[in-house]
Amino acid sequence: MSKPKILIIGGGYGGMMSAVRLEKELGLNNAEITLVNKHNYHYQTTWLHENAAGTLHHDRTRIMIDDIIDTNKINFVQDTVVEIKKDEKRVILQNGELTYDYLVIALGSDPETFGIQGLKENAMSIRSINSVREIREHIDYNFARYNNEGQKQELINIVVGGAGFTGIEFVGELADRVPELCKEYDIPREKVRIINIEAAPNVLPGFDEELVEYAINNLERRGVEFLVNTPIKECNEDGVLLASGEEIKAATVVWTGGVRGNHLVEEAGFETMRGRVKVDKDLRMPGYDYIFVVGDCALIINEEINRPYPPTAQIAIQQAYTLARNLKTLINGGGKMEEFTFDNKGTVASLGKGEAIGVVGNKKLFGSTASAMKKVIDNRYLFLLGGVPMVVKKGKLKLF
Amino acid sequence: MSKPKILIIGGGYGGMMSAVRLEKELGLNNAEITLVNKHNYHYQTTWLHENAAGTLHHDRTRIMIDDIIDTNKINFVQDTVVEIKKDEKRVILQNGELTYDYLVIALGSDPETFGIQGLKENAMSIRSINSVREIREHIDYNFARYNNEGQKQELINIVVGGAGFTGIEFVGELADRVPELCKEYDIPREKVRIINIEAAPNVLPGFDEELVEYAINNLERRGVEFLVNTPIKECNEDGVLLASGEEIKAATVVWTGGVRGNHLVEEAGFETMRGRVKVDKDLRMPGYDYIFVVGDCALIINEEINRPYPPTAQIAIQQAYTLARNLKTLINGGGKMEEFTFDNKGTVASLGKGEAIGVVGNKKLFGSTASAMKKVIDNRYLFLLGGVPMVVKKGKLKLF
Repeated sequence: MSKPKILIIGGGYGGMMSAVRLEKELGLNNAEITLVNKHNYHYQTTWLHENAAGTLHHDRTRIMIDDIIDTNKINFVQDTVVEIKKDEKRVILQNGELTYDYLVIALGSDPETFGIQGLKENAMSIRSINSVREIREHIDYNFARYNNEGQKQELINIVVGGAGFTGIEFVGELADRVPELCKEYDIPREKVRIINIEAAPNVLPGFDEELVEYAINNLERRGVEFLVNTPIKECNEDGVLLASGEEIKAATVVWTGGVRGNHLVEEAGFETMRGRVKVDKDLRMPGYDYIFVVGDCALIINEEINRPYPPTAQIAIQQAYTLARNLKTLINGGGKMEEFTFDNKGTVASLGKGEAIGVVGNKKLFGSTASAMKKVIDNRYLFLLGGVPMVVKKGKLKLF
Repeated sequence: MSKPKILIIGGGYGGMMSAVRLEKELGLNNAEITLVNKHNYHYQTTWLHENAAGTLHHDRTRIMIDDIIDTNKINFVQDTVVEIKKDEKRVILQNGELTYDYLVIALGSDPETFGIQGLKENAMSIRSINSVREIREHIDYNFARYNNEGQKQELINIVVGGAGFTGIEFVGELADRVPELCKEYDIPREKVRIINIEAAPNVLPGFDEELVEYAINNLERRGVEFLVNTPIKECNEDGVLLASGEEIKAATVVWTGGVRGNHLVEEAGFETMRGRVKVDKDLRMPGYDYIFVVGDCALIINEEINRPYPPTAQIAIQQAYTLARNLKTLINGGGKMEEFTFDNKGTVASLGKGEAIGVVGNKKLFGSTASAMKKVIDNRYLFLLGGVPMVVKKGKLKLF
């Protein structure tokens, strides 16, 4: 009897941790595991806003896949998934196709533009190494143009759409980066505008009010402007048009207003809500006992408040553990499947160098304490991914 | 009797050295000297191609003006000249005006576009700190776009128009810089094109043939393509259109095809040839015994070949010495004016790190010898400008 084939599509938090956990849980003789990813590197999505602002180099954020998995035990295919053939147990790639007995869908997210006109075409988004280094260079370039092209104000206006987690963390990094850019290009700091626009009445919806106030005060003091209750009607080449009719001209518009599940899931014919699949408790696709979904494509209800958990790195990583054990059970002939439960270890939002806010357990954290906790969380993931050597290699360590 | 007022307009090689020499030649009580410059810094125009390529930071190239002149002895006005009123002895600035008894025109050059359509609007040029840092960021930005925007070839095509001194030195730096950019943005080096286009039959016209061949071989080996005998017909948003009808798409087009004298000289009503004034032998404007012209606005005939000397830093610096002595003579009541003669100390063209070609006296220099000589020339200017401290502060020194 041939070994069952497990195919993991996507190398983000969910897919990568699935590969790592399956490598640990299953022996070489039990299954043939293949990971498909667009790039030969994995990256930490939760650090991308720093790369986009230019406060951390993107090479710090990415990790070569063969530094994480043992490619003698897991096949790695660098290719782009173009279609999931769910009933034929095949996945079509740009340069080929693969078959599977078990499929792990870990394709991540697409930006959610809520139908705002021109957003997809004219706004940039924080979503990959390729996209964030373009954002960094886009900002640099427009600052460089300022004194050489008649000091047009729009060149140094930066609009950030969305004041959720990514939006707030991004403007926090920009507040650190802009003074450096001003020095580099001879621009007075007070000329530069960083404008965070949010349709909802508050920034960081769902977050503790005291912490939100701390964040806003901190960021405003560092030169960030907030426009809440302010829906964007349209994004065009010149900037954004607000629902009020006001126009804000800006060479740089970055959209952080939300994500939806990867479009390939919907296109494969699965039932989705904003691109996400409401998975069974054992993380399987309803009706497909050989397909698992983890990460941003998986929708799991927080029964305490009867609303979905937001898609985070934390939940994706935890799902990978459950998934690996359940796949082991299946391959070993079946038995009782484990139900996934989310163990919220806390949330910390960085506001820039040495500044953050967070909740861990029922404790609120501010400033440098929260910032230190953020680094602990980042390093913990690296530990799960590749043990101490990975923390040493890629961690955010303060060595003195 | 009040002190005569000397006004120097322009802080390039000619203007800056004039200020330095006048500060030395004239006592505080003999004259009131004022220098007007657009920026509060002077820069080494001959290093700008390195800043544009990104191989040397622009702050290495610029020197604060008050680090060069003693502002207790010379007035410095940061402003932009908009008009020379030659008969009224006035100069109109953007934010005011100044009168003078003696005027030193040292306004430098404008790009010469030879009437090529769209060049002024669509090509960049290597002419100021503001322009070169925009070029550097423009190239970086388009390389950053490549993998994020469908790997369009034009994003990583760089067209350099003109294979004179600046053009050749610039492609030499690009040949050094491009491999770094490829590493930064995950682009195979062989995909990138650096295309140097020249209308004349040869690169570096007027230079020794053996040296030119050395340069071409060196640069071609490092991935530069040469198109000689190839006039550009038009430059547009997509790239350049050659006279042959062929189109070369390129996000980056940098024009180095030549310079003319600053347009303000012509506009003031002086007689010019390509914006340059054929000055008298004592460097005065014909018909105006109180106006001197130095640097790129001054045209001086090389009588050996009956053609004008090309506008270089070397000739501008030498003119400043003559000018200062002649102004001293005039202010001290007249006498025999000194005639300017150019003492050609040699020419070296850099081809990148550790590579150059040059002629010093009747000796040809290649490779690292020429490159070392280039640094000697660069440091010598700094020595003339500010003595040993300036060489230490801003020089190109190899300290080990």
